[in-house]
Amino acid sequence: MTVVLDRGRLVDAMETQATIGSTEDGGLHRLALTDADKAARDWFVDQLRELDLTVRIDEFGNVFGRRPGTDPDADPVLVGSHLDSQPNGGIYDGQLGVVAALELLRTLRDEQRETAHPIEIVNWTNEEGSRFQPGLQGSGVWSGEFDLQAEYERTDRDGVRLLDELERIGYRGDAPAEPAEEYEAYYELHIEQGPYLEESGSDVGVVTGVVGLSWGEVTFSGEANHAGSTPMHLRYDASVPAAELLVNIRRLPGALGERTVGTVGSVAVEPDSINIIPETATVTWDVRDPSDDVLDRAIDRLSEEARAAAVREGVEHEVEETARTASVEFDDRCVETVQHVADEFGYETLRLLSGGNHDASHLTDVCDTGMVFAVSEDGKSHTPQEYTSWDDCYRAANTVANAVLATATTDA
Amino acid sequence: MTVVLDRGRLVDAMETQATIGSTEDGGLHRLALTDADKAARDWFVDQLRELDLTVRIDEFGNVFGRRPGTDPDADPVLVGSHLDSQPNGGIYDGQLGVVAALELLRTLRDEQRETAHPIEIVNWTNEEGSRFQPGLQGSGVWSGEFDLQAEYERTDRDGVRLLDELERIGYRGDAPAEPAEEYEAYYELHIEQGPYLEESGSDVGVVTGVVGLSWGEVTFSGEANHAGSTPMHLRYDASVPAAELLVNIRRLPGALGERTVGTVGSVAVEPDSINIIPETATVTWDVRDPSDDVLDRAIDRLSEEARAAAVREGVEHEVEETARTASVEFDDRCVETVQHVADEFGYETLRLLSGGNHDASHLTDVCDTGMVFAVSEDGKSHTPQEYTSWDDCYRAANTVANAVLATATTDA
Repeated sequence: MTVVLDRGRLVDAMETQATIGSTEDGGLHRLALTDADKAARDWFVDQLRELDLTVRIDEFGNVFGRRPGTDPDADPVLVGSHLDSQPNGGIYDGQLGVVAALELLRTLRDEQRETAHPIEIVNWTNEEGSRFQPGLQGSGVWSGEFDLQAEYERTDRDGVRLLDELERIGYRGDAPAEPAEEYEAYYELHIEQGPYLEESGSDVGVVTGVVGLSWGEVTFSGEANHAGSTPMHLRYDASVPAAELLVNIRRLPGALGERTVGTVGSVAVEPDSINIIPETATVTWDVRDPSDDVLDRAIDRLSEEARAAAVREGVEHEVEETARTASVEFDDRCVETVQHVADEFGYETLRLLSGGNHDASHLTDVCDTGMVFAVSEDGKSHTPQEYTSWDDCYRAANTVANAVLATATTDA
Repeated sequence: MTVVLDRGRLVDAMETQATIGSTEDGGLHRLALTDADKAARDWFVDQLRELDLTVRIDEFGNVFGRRPGTDPDADPVLVGSHLDSQPNGGIYDGQLGVVAALELLRTLRDEQRETAHPIEIVNWTNEEGSRFQPGLQGSGVWSGEFDLQAEYERTDRDGVRLLDELERIGYRGDAPAEPAEEYEAYYELHIEQGPYLEESGSDVGVVTGVVGLSWGEVTFSGEANHAGSTPMHLRYDASVPAAELLVNIRRLPGALGERTVGTVGSVAVEPDSINIIPETATVTWDVRDPSDDVLDRAIDRLSEEARAAAVREGVEHEVEETARTASVEFDDRCVETVQHVADEFGYETLRLLSGGNHDASHLTDVCDTGMVFAVSEDGKSHTPQEYTSWDDCYRAANTVANAVLATATTDA
């Protein structure tokens, strides 16, 4: 029953896609709905047509290719990921999941293998969320989590509207951006973007779920004043509590769960002049934990520290949580299928939670869902230094391919 | 001998200049060499011509108006300040010193008072240093501290060259930007921009010098990585030591001199994305103290803390001091003249150091120099809320006018 992918062809396809929107240092700069993203989509559609798949583009730009099954009552199995990248990101993030799915369908065609269930391959629109927020947008709309019209109206930093860009690159399709039928399952292969697989010497990761996430920002408001002539005891410097909160967010994980992580990715002060005491300072937070209870406690502590730091400096402050996603547990059936096919290949596996969020999180609202992780060297991600060896790419691709195949060949 | 200015005319002139480049909330937005600065300069030149002064514009745009003395051997006494403002600044900073000097010359004309020494009034180019760096630029070039050609080449944030803007607004004059003769003295009235006069219940400030200043920046360089999937123990987050250094700079003054102040006005992280661990983080410093020794120790401590914070996080760092000005002591003769005339008016005085830097600092390289401070309500400055009552403006204007007059009537 096992399908064994063609390693050379997988590598060729990975190398080909990596030339679209490539950066000088070997990375990818392929932001959602840019010309580079259009070129990657065009390449993807060419591959789908070459495989004689039925191409369907939905009104949010999600692109599907469908291979029929033999059982007219069997629901399709969906597999895929995303072709957009972070600013100056790496060539594996998202891409590997799409390329592996293409390689599965190529192998099934070459071997003239039929499946009871149809198999659909998908490229989701704007997974990264760096040009247009939020991320996981295409899967969010399709799964019903996000509102289509609201997401159309999102703008990038230059005020360009998402819908206009979608139309400009020719990827506002006709199909409704929603499941038109029941789905049997969704599988996604992604690079780990963390160090656990490498540290444990594993070949592939069997993902059991996704940690919960909280995003937000705290803005402190003090008084702008002259840096030279204002005595220290008459200052209301917004930057000081912001810095104290930042350091505290670094310490938060040590005081909570073993898997808690806390990050301040963005800091801004105004008026941002070397000789003016900052009037306002804003820091963002990104806090994650597998336990929604621990996440609640983390945000409580963070809010308490923000309050205390503001009081110490005598400034005002506001705390706003801008996003919260509950932790996700993938379905046993999919997790065990991934585990089983990896075992059959003799791969060393690690069962782990994903620290990053993926389109698969949204898909759990639609159908049974599972994920496979490929090893990320040094856990690096969102940088041109992101690296997964071709051997590791191949192992993970075989794993997801056979999980899809196993699910697609079961009786409806 | 005393001259008493016309309070109503002083207020009128202050209100008139405040309409040029005014903001909706009653402030001034009159950045150096913009159209608003040109309009203020045009108004100033009109005033000089109306007073029958000999107008001289030098090649760096400094504008002088000269009233002859009766003694051909007597050197001129210079008085003035600047007409440019900070972004969204106040209507007193710089402006009051220029308007008070105009009012002195108007009163001398009306009273047909002659002086042994010529009196020159000056508006310095780009005191603020917010559009083009550095500040105190016109006086710096004129006093020989800065190189004319180098300052011509400075560009603003949009890459516009200073020389091109100077020519565009028609203020690149023919006179050499240097003293063509000996000067007897320079006086400048400025608002305090600090709280000491108000706190002590004083009417005017007798400025004895300017504190020393150090500007610089520290850049920490770590590793960008995924905020969700990177465990805390594998992070090299540049923002953390930057925040620790910021908090430390807040504490520095308490550990050093009574008059030490330390400010981080600007903070930047890259890539500045909510879910990416910052790769680089840069904080600026502005540290000032009346003692150059204390300033040296402050920068040593700051550098040591930067190193320690970088080591704790395992990141690289660079410390660069970008500007250093030694503390300045004004000449006893000018300080005592200011004190004497203020006493004659019966004004309550406070002798104090200036925490802010002023064109007067550069003038100490050219001739004897003194300064008068006007009360700043709540010490506010560089904001539309900057406020000095008309009574306080008037008292400080009378003080600087009579200091100039006393010096200009002494024998050569």
